Amino acid sequence: MSSQPTDDSFHVFDTTLRDGAQREGINLTVADKLAIARHLDDFGVGFIEGGWPGANPRDTEFFARAQQEITFGSAQLVAFGATRRAGAKASEDPQVRALLESGAPVITLVAKAHDRHVELALRTTLEENLEMVRDTVSHLVAQGRRVFIDCEHFFDGYRANPQYAKAVVRTASDAGADVVVLCDTNGGMLPAQIHAVVATVLADTGARLGIHAQDDTGCAVANTLAAVDAGATHVQCTANGYGERVGNANLFPVVAALELKYGRQVLPEGKLKEMTRVSHAIAEVVNLTPATHQPYVGVSAFAHKAGLHASAIKVDPDLYQHIDPELVGNRIRMLVSDMAGRASIELKGKELGVDLGGDRELIGRVVDRVKERELKGYTYEAADASFELLLREEAEGRARRYFRTESWRAITEDRPDGSHANEATVKLWAKGERIVATAEGNGPVNALDRALRVALERLYPQLAKFELVDYKVRILEGRHGTQSTTRVLISTGDGEADWSTVGVADNVIAASWQALEDAYTYGLLRAGVEPTE
Amino acid sequence: MSSQPTDDSFHVFDTTLRDGAQREGINLTVADKLAIARHLDDFGVGFIEGGWPGANPRDTEFFARAQQEITFGSAQLVAFGATRRAGAKASEDPQVRALLESGAPVITLVAKAHDRHVELALRTTLEENLEMVRDTVSHLVAQGRRVFIDCEHFFDGYRANPQYAKAVVRTASDAGADVVVLCDTNGGMLPAQIHAVVATVLADTGARLGIHAQDDTGCAVANTLAAVDAGATHVQCTANGYGERVGNANLFPVVAALELKYGRQVLPEGKLKEMTRVSHAIAEVVNLTPATHQPYVGVSAFAHKAGLHASAIKVDPDLYQHIDPELVGNRIRMLVSDMAGRASIELKGKELGVDLGGDRELIGRVVDRVKERELKGYTYEAADASFELLLREEAEGRARRYFRTESWRAITEDRPDGSHANEATVKLWAKGERIVATAEGNGPVNALDRALRVALERLYPQLAKFELVDYKVRILEGRHGTQSTTRVLISTGDGEADWSTVGVADNVIAASWQALEDAYTYGLLRAGVEPTE
Repeated sequence: MSSQPTDDSFHVFDTTLRDGAQREGINLTVADKLAIARHLDDFGVGFIEGGWPGANPRDTEFFARAQQEITFGSAQLVAFGATRRAGAKASEDPQVRALLESGAPVITLVAKAHDRHVELALRTTLEENLEMVRDTVSHLVAQGRRVFIDCEHFFDGYRANPQYAKAVVRTASDAGADVVVLCDTNGGMLPAQIHAVVATVLADTGARLGIHAQDDTGCAVANTLAAVDAGATHVQCTANGYGERVGNANLFPVVAALELKYGRQVLPEGKLKEMTRVSHAIAEVVNLTPATHQPYVGVSAFAHKAGLHASAIKVDPDLYQHIDPELVGNRIRMLVSDMAGRASIELKGKELGVDLGGDRELIGRVVDRVKERELKGYTYEAADASFELLLREEAEGRARRYFRTESWRAITEDRPDGSHANEATVKLWAKGERIVATAEGNGPVNALDRALRVALERLYPQLAKFELVDYKVRILEGRHGTQSTTRVLISTGDGEADWSTVGVADNVIAASWQALEDAYTYGLLRAGVEPTE
Repeated sequence: MSSQPTDDSFHVFDTTLRDGAQREGINLTVADKLAIARHLDDFGVGFIEGGWPGANPRDTEFFARAQQEITFGSAQLVAFGATRRAGAKASEDPQVRALLESGAPVITLVAKAHDRHVELALRTTLEENLEMVRDTVSHLVAQGRRVFIDCEHFFDGYRANPQYAKAVVRTASDAGADVVVLCDTNGGMLPAQIHAVVATVLADTGARLGIHAQDDTGCAVANTLAAVDAGATHVQCTANGYGERVGNANLFPVVAALELKYGRQVLPEGKLKEMTRVSHAIAEVVNLTPATHQPYVGVSAFAHKAGLHASAIKVDPDLYQHIDPELVGNRIRMLVSDMAGRASIELKGKELGVDLGGDRELIGRVVDRVKERELKGYTYEAADASFELLLREEAEGRARRYFRTESWRAITEDRPDGSHANEATVKLWAKGERIVATAEGNGPVNALDRALRVALERLYPQLAKFELVDYKVRILEGRHGTQSTTRVLISTGDGEADWSTVGVADNVIAASWQALEDAYTYGLLRAGVEPTE
């Protein structure tokens, strides 16, 4: 590993694989968990909580394979589990044994710290709960493991019975737990409350404290930082804030605040700029679209639309951004929309390498075209390639084309035996020839895509490299009494770069065809092929 | 109006229509703005900032129509604008005149409070900027308007030159501005910083202060509350946190915290429970999917997946929720997923009115079916109706059906004249008859939907009321070396309720067909029609 782990004085503890997986819509395979663990280690977190070995076969398999298949750089693997059952011995509890058998060097034990939960959910006595903490922690420490304790519902418990909540902290710490993590399990706290409780518990117990915040008040990041302000030196977070209900404290804004606002290095040198990439990569693995408006790492995080801002940014970008986006691997973007003025269009042209040279009349025409198309449902904010084609068409006075569509047809059939057939035919003109091509596919759009390739690949061999990498459909509701329309966004790649195009029509197939036409046209332009008309 | 406006001692000020509209992807028509204003007034905010009259024709038209068409209950309409140009007179500035001509009783003026911005962006002297504030505020006050001042980049400006930043506050206040709003325009602040600056400025100037926070550090809600803790009595927010870049302080968690955590009434009596409905309604108007994981109002905000939680919730729901979801018009939901245990399935059954009676073997079969289907790409978290069909099938030992599909076919054609044709044919059996029906539609799925209606409406007249209300497509990437599959989620309504169904197949048409079959089957079941087989 090239990067140095940071020292033990401050812990960045990630629980995406355990608590993050509780998010509605997330369903991780072992392969997913291994991929995420690699990304997190690559980002430089200190601890990766991988799951609850023994509780389900998937988590048990993850621990076995992670230790075999991954050479961790900065991170240590953590197994999550519970204190032993009431009335038993930790050394004889099968759940505790599974934690040891996972081979993880660090174990986080969840313990009840709220008297009411001990009685109602655990159905045991307050004293036995303390005994469960003491026995389980000392057993695991005796077996050579480092132990952290998650005090579940700590803040609610502290409000109800502060003496008992602190007794759990002292018991865990005295039994050998290295960090006692105060959890706002129901997520109902606000920063000032977190600050006050953490400060008091630290003063009264002297234990090393951590924080685990849920985002139910929308304050999980601030709650985490408030605990650090009060003396916590261990933060539990999840990538992109994934987690039960609203989610957990988001790893990325917490780390960014600590490094950029507090000036406290918590990642190995040079890792902060991987943040945007890692955030998006993990979203891909869990199969969720990266949240566009996420702090620091969202594609919109440094995107400017207001004409007022665009004019100022032409003077000095720092006037309208709180940090240099490159510090977190993100970038500034100017948005093209009918709210944007001429300054935005000019900056966007510059970003795409099309010099509009301050031509006011040309820029005005582009603004008008964008307005007119957005009214129909097009959006250029997420379709740079379609925007560039529009821009070049206005700048050059005509559209540059490689082919001209005459007509097409797509048929999808469900047969009595349950199998599907998809067939598409395209009729088009290219380099003076009329070409008719038919192809099958696994769906109607795929069949159209293949038919288009069959028709064109002899004349334009460059398009053999093109690949559809993403495909999104949005139904624009006929809210204003109009017929509903369909918008399709397609991302296409050639192995070097990806580009995005948009199509809008009264149905999904026709909208997809438009986006495909733009995608092939832009790809050929990008490849330096001379347009034929 | 039935609800009493709250008094003037605390302002809930909404800027969705002005600052919120800066969000990437939002593009509001005048009709959209009127609809949102009605929702905000209905929710009970005190002030609705409608836009910048004079800056664009849309905003000018909005102010004219809002005052004509809307009878406001709790809210006052606010026009946003800038201080007069340097070197001119406020009384002769056409931008200032447009603010008066808008007829809005309240005007928010944006003023520069950061010395560097005055010099670089405004290109005038620090003294002239103060003069612009003084002149514009007193002119508008003399014309009988209430004036608030937005001090742009206040916190960055305060760090650079606290004396000047405070001079802007004093000038505005002395000239007659009722509230001086400190804006974290670049959104880079953290709660402790906001608290310290607001407390100092309040002590040093005595002006009534407001807060306007952007969410670039992920702390906008906490920053807003920190300002209130320090003495601010006016909060500027946007519905669902819409806004430039990452967004603004989200109105809903700010209001919920003030009412439920601070015990401070800031909305008219009884309005808090409208929060979830208003949040979703505004999302519909701006044509964005309501954020599922938003605090308080997201559909996931009180959704539980972990088996551990589900078991405890069976004992007492308050063990795992920070507030009663009904207080904000939301509800608790149990999620069905392969991470869920038997307890979740049983609770979900109860929610759907299917009593599983603790039948361990039956519940086990349902858990297995869900696991097996989720592996193929189905998701039941957002498809309650499909889940209920699966549950009933297991509970009753067989699927209840109204028809049996033999085959279908969909054709989409783009003609040389640019028009599209969509035609679908279905062949099915119902009540012992073989039926063949063909229909056209505005897309292939719509054509299939219509063909299905044509085939069945004679036998099942109840389905005349069914209407497709939402349609979502998700491409599940073949990340694990498999062929990519398509998942379709359909919402159908009958005027009384909506229900959601899921289909998964190798192409979008086939997946849509599956979801349609479930939608019609569930709708007929709901209508009390006896299944035929």
